[in-house]
Amino acid sequence: MRAMPERALVVYANPEPTSFGAALRDRAVAELQAQGMEVAVSDLYAMGFDPVARGEEFSNRRFDHRLWYDREQQHAVRTDTLCDDVAAEVEKLRAADLVVLVFPLWWFSVPAILKGWFDRVLVKDVAYGGGRRYAEGGFAGKRAMLVTTTNAWPGMLAPDGLVGDVEIVLWPLQNGVLGYTGFGVLPALVANAVAFVQDEDRHAILDDLAARLADWRTAETIPFHHAGEVGEDWRLRDDVEIRVIGHRRA
Amino acid sequence: MRAMPERALVVYANPEPTSFGAALRDRAVAELQAQGMEVAVSDLYAMGFDPVARGEEFSNRRFDHRLWYDREQQHAVRTDTLCDDVAAEVEKLRAADLVVLVFPLWWFSVPAILKGWFDRVLVKDVAYGGGRRYAEGGFAGKRAMLVTTTNAWPGMLAPDGLVGDVEIVLWPLQNGVLGYTGFGVLPALVANAVAFVQDEDRHAILDDLAARLADWRTAETIPFHHAGEVGEDWRLRDDVEIRVIGHRRA
Repeated sequence: MRAMPERALVVYANPEPTSFGAALRDRAVAELQAQGMEVAVSDLYAMGFDPVARGEEFSNRRFDHRLWYDREQQHAVRTDTLCDDVAAEVEKLRAADLVVLVFPLWWFSVPAILKGWFDRVLVKDVAYGGGRRYAEGGFAGKRAMLVTTTNAWPGMLAPDGLVGDVEIVLWPLQNGVLGYTGFGVLPALVANAVAFVQDEDRHAILDDLAARLADWRTAETIPFHHAGEVGEDWRLRDDVEIRVIGHRRA
Repeated sequence: MRAMPERALVVYANPEPTSFGAALRDRAVAELQAQGMEVAVSDLYAMGFDPVARGEEFSNRRFDHRLWYDREQQHAVRTDTLCDDVAAEVEKLRAADLVVLVFPLWWFSVPAILKGWFDRVLVKDVAYGGGRRYAEGGFAGKRAMLVTTTNAWPGMLAPDGLVGDVEIVLWPLQNGVLGYTGFGVLPALVANAVAFVQDEDRHAILDDLAARLADWRTAETIPFHHAGEVGEDWRLRDDVEIRVIGHRRA
């Protein structure tokens, strides 16, 4: 009996088909396929993905008088009534061993179409819920990676740069979205100033992406704190050493 | 001659009309009107605001072969061809002395519909551009404030909490969106666990909001570093003391 192939999901959010982001997407797909993986691509612009979370997407409402979006997500999961576009993305996520998000950094976060993919697709009871977060999150055992392009010069996003440390800029995405739902998060690939550098620099970035993806199973992931380290007040116990960016003793 | 009244813009992003967010919006409007201000409200869900940035929104493209979204924004500003929904929001922003953003914290950021308002409305040449950022940003002289609701217990968002310091969670919004475009940023009102607390707690939060808005002209704003503090490599000069969260010496 042959082993099931490993699977990857590449989520791509960019309105310009000839962008450097498209080249990053294609290189990721090629590298992962060369490893024998089955690779699905969610091209959110090409799909016309609707990023706006609304009560109308639930055909089998649990509560008619008021929208609690997360509770309706949970109810739709349990009654198998997620709407088609969300259900298709949830299935891709469940199947994936590795998720790669490829996007331009707009206002120091993801484009709205990808933010709405988080809002609508990371449904309660699958991605999290019932106390499952971080190490116990719904996607524990899977890995994920941000691949993002910017028009900033690298110095701007240095720890002592004008905008500040890119690791803190990305913290809500890496800790709050990916870490929270259980992914092991590989260090982000941040391609700065892509409109301003030379072709040889861009080729080097693509090679860097391929090299990192060659090691996706074994590369060290970003540390996050987890529920086993907090007390009943949700704060890190006194014996826990803070080893994670985004935390400090008050 | 009477002085022009001061103006506020309240941007509200919530799909549920009976949410606590709606109560926060209404209290903000009432407090600011009681001060004699003219208050505009952008209710993004009620407006059906489209959050997806696309090339098709530009009727007078500068570049036909490829979409550089920011350059098309700039060209549309200069040729007065911004599309109607964006132009209306830009005018509200230009007129406002104070901008208050009211939203639920979804995935440790704004809902997609509000992220897309940033992507589409904070247009180059108005909000930033030509080197104008932070103290020289397009909205310098105006003030802004985040008002957000969460389902997290306060301890989770404490500096030593499970998720981490809420000031770092909000950093890309407060520094990267509001600070970058020149706003003086008032400390955020973060209303935690709003679904779980008692009515008297919610009334206290509304009173806190009103009290803060009573002081919006004079309250201390969050410090950010600015372009006058960096060298040609975009990094803080050695003589600049780091006094801002999100920065550190490498």
